[in-house]
Amino acid sequence: MTWHSGGVSLPEERRRDTRLDDYHSSYSQRTHQMRASAVRALFAVANRPEVVSLAGGMPNIADLPLDVVAQNISTLIQQRGTQAMQYGSGQGEPFIREQICEVMALEGIQAHPDDVTVTCGSQQGLDLVTRIFCDPGDVILAEAPSYVGALGTFGSYQAEVVHVAMDEHGLLPEALRSAARACAEAGKRPKFLYTIPNFNNPSGITMTLERRRQVLEICREFGILMVEDNPYGLLTLDSDPIPAIRSLDDEQVVYLGSFSKTFAPGFRVGWVLAPHAVREKLVLAQESATLCPPVFSQYAVGSYLANHDWKAQITSFKDMYRARRDAMLHALDEFMPPGATWTHPEGGFFVWLTLPEGLDSQAMLPRAVTARVAFTPGTAFYADGLGSRNVRLSYCFPTPERIHEGVRRLAEVVNQELELHQTFGLDRSPMHVSRAVGPGPETV
Amino acid sequence: MTWHSGGVSLPEERRRDTRLDDYHSSYSQRTHQMRASAVRALFAVANRPEVVSLAGGMPNIADLPLDVVAQNISTLIQQRGTQAMQYGSGQGEPFIREQICEVMALEGIQAHPDDVTVTCGSQQGLDLVTRIFCDPGDVILAEAPSYVGALGTFGSYQAEVVHVAMDEHGLLPEALRSAARACAEAGKRPKFLYTIPNFNNPSGITMTLERRRQVLEICREFGILMVEDNPYGLLTLDSDPIPAIRSLDDEQVVYLGSFSKTFAPGFRVGWVLAPHAVREKLVLAQESATLCPPVFSQYAVGSYLANHDWKAQITSFKDMYRARRDAMLHALDEFMPPGATWTHPEGGFFVWLTLPEGLDSQAMLPRAVTARVAFTPGTAFYADGLGSRNVRLSYCFPTPERIHEGVRRLAEVVNQELELHQTFGLDRSPMHVSRAVGPGPETV
Repeated sequence: MTWHSGGVSLPEERRRDTRLDDYHSSYSQRTHQMRASAVRALFAVANRPEVVSLAGGMPNIADLPLDVVAQNISTLIQQRGTQAMQYGSGQGEPFIREQICEVMALEGIQAHPDDVTVTCGSQQGLDLVTRIFCDPGDVILAEAPSYVGALGTFGSYQAEVVHVAMDEHGLLPEALRSAARACAEAGKRPKFLYTIPNFNNPSGITMTLERRRQVLEICREFGILMVEDNPYGLLTLDSDPIPAIRSLDDEQVVYLGSFSKTFAPGFRVGWVLAPHAVREKLVLAQESATLCPPVFSQYAVGSYLANHDWKAQITSFKDMYRARRDAMLHALDEFMPPGATWTHPEGGFFVWLTLPEGLDSQAMLPRAVTARVAFTPGTAFYADGLGSRNVRLSYCFPTPERIHEGVRRLAEVVNQELELHQTFGLDRSPMHVSRAVGPGPETV
Repeated sequence: MTWHSGGVSLPEERRRDTRLDDYHSSYSQRTHQMRASAVRALFAVANRPEVVSLAGGMPNIADLPLDVVAQNISTLIQQRGTQAMQYGSGQGEPFIREQICEVMALEGIQAHPDDVTVTCGSQQGLDLVTRIFCDPGDVILAEAPSYVGALGTFGSYQAEVVHVAMDEHGLLPEALRSAARACAEAGKRPKFLYTIPNFNNPSGITMTLERRRQVLEICREFGILMVEDNPYGLLTLDSDPIPAIRSLDDEQVVYLGSFSKTFAPGFRVGWVLAPHAVREKLVLAQESATLCPPVFSQYAVGSYLANHDWKAQITSFKDMYRARRDAMLHALDEFMPPGATWTHPEGGFFVWLTLPEGLDSQAMLPRAVTARVAFTPGTAFYADGLGSRNVRLSYCFPTPERIHEGVRRLAEVVNQELELHQTFGLDRSPMHVSRAVGPGPETV
């Protein structure tokens, strides 16, 4: 097994002499894609209280009414504890699949509970969908940039990711058409197009309704399945949510949903909505992977939905996230030097910053952490080495005041980098490590 | 996609005419192993209240103190709800990994919390272990018979299972040695030996301490990793548990543990104890599959272990399971005709019945369900088509009275089958469907 640290491998003789792993020749091929990240060590430092972390993707759940949740779950255990603590259905419990259909209806989706498969978070939904569709070497189309956790999953199934360009309205139809044609000419039909159409993680870009129709049309034309990953849609801050792609088509789209951002992540309850035949394979795959998704969690989430005004809770979350998004955008305006640009998300958790030309966010990260601010470098979100000028900034977890301070610190670092760059004219060839940041909860 | 029902496939022209699945040409190779089971339909019938089901593997948790559990979890939410409902560590929370080490110490295992990875049930542990070790075509050695859920998982990674014979003391050393040599001669080193040494599911056989040492020795000699799956060890009914294989060796053994049978299954909290380098890959695989195992569940199980006399609860479970095991063995003695034999488990949930010669348990199942008793046919527990004379009988869930009645009904069916067989001299060539019963919670 070879450890990569900034692109340097252990020399062959050292690997033979210091064999720390008796099983190094036993691992499967897919593990070669699984590497611990050099940046992980930095995140351990970034979690210190004196560091403002703009790196993570953890929702702020401090305002959940703990008394109400405790009361609901206590009653649940006393009344239905024996079912809630028993093995359950591999597809997920019928009651929550009905509730999930009610939740999806808020974004225009018409669905039957039978076509819903409950998963251990929507991350597991993505894992199972990839498992049932992808053989090693298969192509998956993804936005440029795309969610680091998805890229990690696709890599673990040895799929080849082809990124497709976006502008501020989402995927570019011509770029998608080109990518689909290029794959066809190479004799490789993409197994699916993976999209996060609402406030794409990491770019914050939302696919407009017009683009959703155009992208759907192209996918129908080329016979490409769409996988729509939508954890943030109900956290649209400035308007009602745009209709989900799945609301426009129920045959070409597999939809991933989650309660992680609209309620809380710790229960690990997500879902996949898929056409019947796909659903059958998903359930078989789930049973093989876990027997059944967490039953107690489903009852807990179900009782929350049934007994609490969860829509009012979402409104409350939106007010809180709106203040944080606004704080970040104002601070960026106030502090960032000319040459820096950034997206203006209408919801979700992230702003995508493009540094002035010549700067490298991965190289800059250690200096930022020393200056007590952390972020996720853009290269994490590309399978092809791009993203070195980009930074993903999360506004979901810190307070508006901390966000303001964090951006101030970051801008100082950027300015120092600019000075070095201008003074010394350094060739700042970035040290690329593909997906330098492995997937993990702190980089959600 | 081809549906198998008792070995009959849909003819080609029908498949073209009635294409119910637009994605039939898109699925991955591994899905070809995933088939819905013809026997599943029978289990839906078997779940009717008038049927005595001796088929499932669900633990009886009716006597868990629901008030105490409710109180613990309510307090947990009020005091630590914000952590318990947040994303957590991909390896699992540190506090529960420490508690898991205390639990394992009861079976002689010395371990460090750092070497524990928490999983969504031990089923997921098995899935991740297979994922990091097995490429398509790799060989896995397993007991004959072995757990249906494991066979399903191994199949989903396109591994080839080679069964190794047991006697009443567990794996036969010479059979293991022969299998290892045969693999070596074929140029295929088995990736691991999968064993359920305590009350093997489905046979109820326990590997003696002497055999554990012999098997370990052979595995060391051939360089074969052992995967020890031990959900039932603490439910040893007539004595203290035998020392775990992992207590005899900490380099050659990967250990799977679970709270499903000693506490409750619905939280989906299990674990893998593995050497350091293996653990690192397991955590990367977990993060890719789920981001993190269910956090709330870990807090719930942790608070139960910390605040309740869980060892006394296990003693109470043992008394209950002992009465059920004894009821089953007595009923088998009372009702089964000559020619039928069965195992005498010292714990766990299952008795393995061998029918009189000439009978076929899979063919017999529909008639049994008509007679209002259900069981799991033995062919489910072999990857190679064997097991048609065998029946797995579960005593974990029904009351002693129901067990008595169920065995009575089953013996009637067996007697009727014997009469038919003797009267008509039928050639009862069994309709083999490999792994006729797919994995699923009702066949745990």
